Amino acid sequence: MVESQPSDSAPEEAGTHVGELLALAQSPAQLKELERSQLPQLCKEMRSFLLDTVQQTGGHLGSNTGIVELTVALHYLYDFARDRLIFDVSHQCYPHKLLTGRMAGFEGLRQTGGLCGFTHPEESPYDLFHTGHAGTSISLGVGLAMARAHEENPPKVVSVIGDASLGAGVAFEAINHAGASGVRMLVVLNDNEWSISKSVGALAKYLSRIRANRLMQRAGQETKSLIHAIPLIGPRVDKALDDIGEVMRHAVVPGHVFEEAGVRYVGPVDGHDVNGLIDVLAKVRQLDGVVILHVLTEKGKGHPDGPSHPERVHAVKPKPSSLEYKTEGKRVPKVPQGIPFTQAFAESLESAAASDVRIHAITAAMPSGTGLTHFAERYPGRFHDTGITEQHALAMAAGMAKGGLRPVAAIYSTFLQRGYDQCFQEIALQDLPVILALDRAGPVGQDGPTHHGAFDIAFLRTLPNFVLGAPRDATDMRRMLGSFLAQEHPAALRYPRGNCPKEESIPERERSPMVPGKAEVLREGTQVVLWAYGSMVQTALEVAALLAEEGHRLGVVDARFVKPLDEDLLRGHLKAYQHIVTLEAHQRMGGFGSAVLEAANRLAAWDASPLAKVKILGMPDRFLEHRSTVEEQLAEAGLDTERVARTVRNLLGGTRRSPAGH
Amino acid sequence: MVESQPSDSAPEEAGTHVGELLALAQSPAQLKELERSQLPQLCKEMRSFLLDTVQQTGGHLGSNTGIVELTVALHYLYDFARDRLIFDVSHQCYPHKLLTGRMAGFEGLRQTGGLCGFTHPEESPYDLFHTGHAGTSISLGVGLAMARAHEENPPKVVSVIGDASLGAGVAFEAINHAGASGVRMLVVLNDNEWSISKSVGALAKYLSRIRANRLMQRAGQETKSLIHAIPLIGPRVDKALDDIGEVMRHAVVPGHVFEEAGVRYVGPVDGHDVNGLIDVLAKVRQLDGVVILHVLTEKGKGHPDGPSHPERVHAVKPKPSSLEYKTEGKRVPKVPQGIPFTQAFAESLESAAASDVRIHAITAAMPSGTGLTHFAERYPGRFHDTGITEQHALAMAAGMAKGGLRPVAAIYSTFLQRGYDQCFQEIALQDLPVILALDRAGPVGQDGPTHHGAFDIAFLRTLPNFVLGAPRDATDMRRMLGSFLAQEHPAALRYPRGNCPKEESIPERERSPMVPGKAEVLREGTQVVLWAYGSMVQTALEVAALLAEEGHRLGVVDARFVKPLDEDLLRGHLKAYQHIVTLEAHQRMGGFGSAVLEAANRLAAWDASPLAKVKILGMPDRFLEHRSTVEEQLAEAGLDTERVARTVRNLLGGTRRSPAGH
Repeated sequence: MVESQPSDSAPEEAGTHVGELLALAQSPAQLKELERSQLPQLCKEMRSFLLDTVQQTGGHLGSNTGIVELTVALHYLYDFARDRLIFDVSHQCYPHKLLTGRMAGFEGLRQTGGLCGFTHPEESPYDLFHTGHAGTSISLGVGLAMARAHEENPPKVVSVIGDASLGAGVAFEAINHAGASGVRMLVVLNDNEWSISKSVGALAKYLSRIRANRLMQRAGQETKSLIHAIPLIGPRVDKALDDIGEVMRHAVVPGHVFEEAGVRYVGPVDGHDVNGLIDVLAKVRQLDGVVILHVLTEKGKGHPDGPSHPERVHAVKPKPSSLEYKTEGKRVPKVPQGIPFTQAFAESLESAAASDVRIHAITAAMPSGTGLTHFAERYPGRFHDTGITEQHALAMAAGMAKGGLRPVAAIYSTFLQRGYDQCFQEIALQDLPVILALDRAGPVGQDGPTHHGAFDIAFLRTLPNFVLGAPRDATDMRRMLGSFLAQEHPAALRYPRGNCPKEESIPERERSPMVPGKAEVLREGTQVVLWAYGSMVQTALEVAALLAEEGHRLGVVDARFVKPLDEDLLRGHLKAYQHIVTLEAHQRMGGFGSAVLEAANRLAAWDASPLAKVKILGMPDRFLEHRSTVEEQLAEAGLDTERVARTVRNLLGGTRRSPAGH
Repeated sequence: MVESQPSDSAPEEAGTHVGELLALAQSPAQLKELERSQLPQLCKEMRSFLLDTVQQTGGHLGSNTGIVELTVALHYLYDFARDRLIFDVSHQCYPHKLLTGRMAGFEGLRQTGGLCGFTHPEESPYDLFHTGHAGTSISLGVGLAMARAHEENPPKVVSVIGDASLGAGVAFEAINHAGASGVRMLVVLNDNEWSISKSVGALAKYLSRIRANRLMQRAGQETKSLIHAIPLIGPRVDKALDDIGEVMRHAVVPGHVFEEAGVRYVGPVDGHDVNGLIDVLAKVRQLDGVVILHVLTEKGKGHPDGPSHPERVHAVKPKPSSLEYKTEGKRVPKVPQGIPFTQAFAESLESAAASDVRIHAITAAMPSGTGLTHFAERYPGRFHDTGITEQHALAMAAGMAKGGLRPVAAIYSTFLQRGYDQCFQEIALQDLPVILALDRAGPVGQDGPTHHGAFDIAFLRTLPNFVLGAPRDATDMRRMLGSFLAQEHPAALRYPRGNCPKEESIPERERSPMVPGKAEVLREGTQVVLWAYGSMVQTALEVAALLAEEGHRLGVVDARFVKPLDEDLLRGHLKAYQHIVTLEAHQRMGGFGSAVLEAANRLAAWDASPLAKVKILGMPDRFLEHRSTVEEQLAEAGLDTERVARTVRNLLGGTRRSPAGH
């Protein structure tokens, strides 16, 4: 043990203390040169480094400090230049990045030019996939194993998955198939009893029973030997023992449920004993078939709040001082505006729920992220966290709606993709009044492309019966939610990560009624009208104000609903303006602008007079990769005030009345 | 027992023998008036009726003859006017329809004006949901139970789910949550060991072990009593027995895996002993919480081929004589054309696989429906049926592609929705060369709206990196698949239920190269050009031929790829024609026409000359409900030759050169 070794000779870097051994272990090859006795100290240094840096930069802290020993053990034993390592969700990859030559990048973690917060193939050959949605690592591993199964000495495949991710349906599908598929792979179940919030469901209970009953395991094995040692007390027992032999074997092994699933279970083992882990992994590595190694870890290990409040250390925000340091003037965010859209939603929902007992709130493992924590406290019987199970959450919501309730499922736009078929079959096809609140619509900043909500308009708009809207501010959030609750069809509203405008454009009493299919004209203009959707309305108003200084009068429309679209207003604007510019925080293909264009095309079909051209502004047909802020990503997509203004200036420069084509 | 009762007094209807008791049991209320001793005979009569009628009309036979007793028992005991009954997938609802006043409708099963082949709320208050995708009944049941949980005497909720559906991830998510959610409901596991094809995976093995080990169960219980009766042989055993008591309980109960999942397991019970089922259900009905009742049934029970070849009796086709009888001239299908698109795909894939060992074929429980049965025989090591697990199948495919293989996943368009998030994260975001073969694209005929493939272009087109195409015939199927295999990005091709054209429009050697992003001009014309996608090319050619007789020369383009779209050709056509009419077997919103429109709008932005207008023809923004043929559904959508011709005639009548708007 070298835990007491002095580390005063360790190099210092940007104020972060780098331990001596960590400095020596900058690649898996270097790591393998360390003595096993040095590994506990290395882990200590890694944990210390992570606590120091991630609290500066912000990022997923808890799951990373919890997985240090496991990561060291895996890299010490396997050769992942050849063998294959997959992290589920992959937000727990920081120790892996530390050991694969990326220590310097931690300074810019999750920032432009810095390290991605997830694994990313463009960053390192040790990162196989860029993921951020839970539960698919086993399937990916099965596929990788199959791809090389015919080789004489195929690479070994290891998928590391957390206990909460294991509750996702796709993980179950994978385990159910893996055992039967004949592949050879290791699934490391990193069980820290917590995902982002407390794991829910039977699986979580089962795992915690295994944790609690490690003693029982030993007792059970003892009993088994004792029973076998009992002298025959008659042929019936003899026969019966034969019959239940296999069953007993499962019964006394804590992971017998996994064994029933056709995979070999090993564990539970202590996830913070790095040398113990290496010993177990060395044995497990020799086994054929699919093996689940159950590793018990402590989320937030090493952080003072870790063991007691894992949620606090799941994802930490950067220290303000650090933010200033990093931004150097350029990245200073806009002056804080109104309350977050998430909060506006949550408050609107709570307020509606106070007078409407039909309202139930549903989340799929995101109670805090979707702002529902307070709702859950206030209405515990009407709040349902189903775990990382969007499919079940949405089908359950459909059942609730059929039963007369008004379920509101708050789900990140990107995670709704996991439940798309339920949006189709259980919700749209049945025409049930389920309300979807799609948080994180549009670019999300540092979480990057796995988390951008860029496709929901396109994939929901094509489904019949759905009403789709997006509120521009807190007041309209409440009114739009109200309008959804007042009708009998599936409905979804989308809103971004970020804040509502502080000063609202129109006092509530002067606003036009909030009715699906009705837009609101915020400014009349000439030549160019901006049709904006949701959070882009504020940008449209800023553009209009900017160009007003240059003598241009732009019209501004808050479209409010993409489905049904306000075709009456559009018809008028096609004649009144030369250019309709659509603004949305969504992929240009198939989104809001596409809907406006389709409607304009229909309306114009038999019109012989020159009509406005439609210009679609939105996110491009590629993944916005930048580890940057929401604002920077919007700018990259040409959707910030300055760039939209430039586009409009170009149109104004090129405007002519006739003849107009598209 | 009344099994030997004469039934010669039973009414006859349209040549189908209706038993005496069946005639008396035309509603749940009437059923309840029968004596329990009469129920076996009723079941016999129902089975006989179903065998007679469904073999005439076509439909899902096997699963329905297998579930007769269970359905009778459920309706005999529960009151589903108040209690809630949900059939998973719901193709096994025929006995339920028989008992809820819909016997007369069986004559027109799955035909216009007749009974839907699935449960359908518009048909009966006893049908709660219209479903056809597997695995969601438990979630729906949880939701329904939650909706009324606060009532003093809430309705009882029963979900009936097959063993293969239980392998779908959403079903696991539901069970995992249900036990913890506090709801009270019954899940009837209708275990016939077969879904559409042989169930795969560990769950299937587990269930079949339960089936096999019913004797073991008894032996195990006996052992337990015996062990308890053993005199103390020391304090260690005493303590150990205490410790393992709970474990033992699970071990000797065959469904302990379910019990670990937090739900109560009862069974297995004989699914063809109607009175035994009633007894068990009566007990189970008293239990709190979530109960799984494991019922063993025989798919195809009563059919000579049933027990030995369940796949043969899963879905039977109508007898030719019956088809003629029903159609009365009007519904006679078109003269059979070339080979089915499904076959063209399967042959293309096999042929490609012969020279490219990287090709693996994947199906999610649809080996026969996707035409892969022969591939599976020829290349067993390169064929993977994952069960009803689209999510896992697609993520696994991504893993295989990452490992250097060229996986081709053949999935019905509508079922791809279940794996949408994997299309996003595992495939598009990683930019991996997974090929999706989307069968049943467009309207599917009698299976109806749960099975129409109406949204795939919209939801895939918005994802970056995907190449999307649709072949017009068997030759291009092979060439398009080849073009996908020759590039390094995710790709999907879609093709309909139905046959390729027999006579191909152009010999292969005269066709333009098959390159993503390149369309093929099939006819040059004036004024109007038809841009058709996939199977609609044949319709476009027929329309052009029809209008040629009227003196009009239409252009016809096989667009081939919607992404990337052939913008060069489009640019030329915008100038050369007055009207571009797009044709697709897909929702108009967000589909192929929308893509053409978006591109035309971009191309035309700075063009001052009069340009062609775009007219989008596709499936409407509602669910095509008709129990009718593919041809009739296309006609309903205005997509048959006659209606498209009419649309074009209208355009030609209203055509003017200038000024052109959209």
